[in-house]
Amino acid sequence: MKRVKKIEHLCIIGVGLIGGSFARAVRQADLVNHITGCGRNIDNLKKALELGVIDDYSQDIREAVKEADLIFIATPVGSFKSILSQIKDSMKDGAIITDGGSTKTSVIEAAKAVFNEVPENFVPGHPIAGTENSGVEASFATLYQDHRVILTPLKQTKPEAVEYITQLWESIGAQVVIMDAHHHDLVLAATSHLPHLLAFSLVNTLTTLDEKQEIFENAAGGFRDFTRIASSDPSMWQDICLANKDALLEHLDLFSSDLKQLRSALQQGDGDFLKQIFTRAKHSRDDLSAKNSD
Amino acid sequence: MKRVKKIEHLCIIGVGLIGGSFARAVRQADLVNHITGCGRNIDNLKKALELGVIDDYSQDIREAVKEADLIFIATPVGSFKSILSQIKDSMKDGAIITDGGSTKTSVIEAAKAVFNEVPENFVPGHPIAGTENSGVEASFATLYQDHRVILTPLKQTKPEAVEYITQLWESIGAQVVIMDAHHHDLVLAATSHLPHLLAFSLVNTLTTLDEKQEIFENAAGGFRDFTRIASSDPSMWQDICLANKDALLEHLDLFSSDLKQLRSALQQGDGDFLKQIFTRAKHSRDDLSAKNSD
Repeated sequence: MKRVKKIEHLCIIGVGLIGGSFARAVRQADLVNHITGCGRNIDNLKKALELGVIDDYSQDIREAVKEADLIFIATPVGSFKSILSQIKDSMKDGAIITDGGSTKTSVIEAAKAVFNEVPENFVPGHPIAGTENSGVEASFATLYQDHRVILTPLKQTKPEAVEYITQLWESIGAQVVIMDAHHHDLVLAATSHLPHLLAFSLVNTLTTLDEKQEIFENAAGGFRDFTRIASSDPSMWQDICLANKDALLEHLDLFSSDLKQLRSALQQGDGDFLKQIFTRAKHSRDDLSAKNSD
Repeated sequence: MKRVKKIEHLCIIGVGLIGGSFARAVRQADLVNHITGCGRNIDNLKKALELGVIDDYSQDIREAVKEADLIFIATPVGSFKSILSQIKDSMKDGAIITDGGSTKTSVIEAAKAVFNEVPENFVPGHPIAGTENSGVEASFATLYQDHRVILTPLKQTKPEAVEYITQLWESIGAQVVIMDAHHHDLVLAATSHLPHLLAFSLVNTLTTLDEKQEIFENAAGGFRDFTRIASSDPSMWQDICLANKDALLEHLDLFSSDLKQLRSALQQGDGDFLKQIFTRAKHSRDDLSAKNSD
């Protein structure tokens, strides 16, 4: 792989799990000279500085981005419009913007609303990696290794900018996939947003039961795995659900309709139907285990 | 802890993950002299013999149990009635029966149907442990360490038998909890059976989508955790769902009704409601992480 050009000055807006891990990874790969952090939580920024994840910080976005050659936005997607408005007149000419937002249509809409047209130097992106933890202390340099990063450039996006961002991600071990933003949102609604919604919803339902105490006391490994994502950041997931509402509702309705069928089969004692559904699911899930380290 | 009496002759009916792990654990703790395996899959029994999990086997249940002092039934719960009928007239006087069945009311009903009344030497049990894998090769001696085992004895169950089974489980590192069978089924419907049903159902729904291929290709750790239990044995779970139908339907309906509310909030863009639900779920799930190694 050809050596990618070093980033002179990187600004990370939102130095949490995603932003912090990107900073650590490019630093470890010797791909950056200076990293400025920006964010609303001053304690988190101080911690990031202390951990050497960033070199300095400013809570004033305009100030934070003004010297940056690359701006990486890694905040909840609901904040993008406000952030882009503040960046707009203070960023350097030719600076490249990319992001780690979990939804892409909404991010593109936000950019359109602020800039009238999505800037040619803005490469929307989404690393398919993460844990249920948040904040800079949860970040680590190898988060993106062997993980996918989906980029959703538009027609007007500069090919050089897409190429540069692609090379950066590849240099820190990720695999880049290019996809249409709308398609990204549909796929992620199914594979990430709906599972999160269901996990949050199930745990919430169980907390309302009389047997709540015993339920959690008797939870085994299967329950812990199934509900781990319910420990994710509520504000971030509120934003994601609203930003990808249409695709999420579409998949939620398909799920609910299939679940209703399963309920009828259960009520009627139709074991064959249950087994057929369970078997098909097991085959798909086993295939996934075979392809990925589980 | 007082040293528990060694089992002279143990018969394991169903030498899979649960039965095989029990055999390995009592053997490792030097708590058994001889183990006979019994099951429908001859290759699995041969494998169990080869691995030293059992000392011999018979596929004839009557033959397998006739010398046993302790009979451990670890087969899908739908098979209990047939197994108990075959045990009935061939087991030794005074032999103790226990089991690892995931539902307890159905197991007790099966025993009632076969014996007219649940035998005083039968201690219904359920170890809250397992993985998504099955078969003797998936079994391991430490499966029950630091896991709960729920026993659901009846009024007529001999206290000595309950005490003996309790000591056995404790000797291999488990924590025993005594519970009413009906209550057990309600708690497990919430903490295990419903999550399995939802995981199977979601994976099945996703396999029906046009984007199926991409969905599974872009699945990250959260999805893998959430759906891991969909790799569980379909026959076993068909049995569990049918055996615990009433409690499962009750919890499924509560879940569906709460999910419907969440759907309305999402459709109306009511972020505050989403955040409130997500936050409550996160708190409960974080508490669970704090109590258990996650």
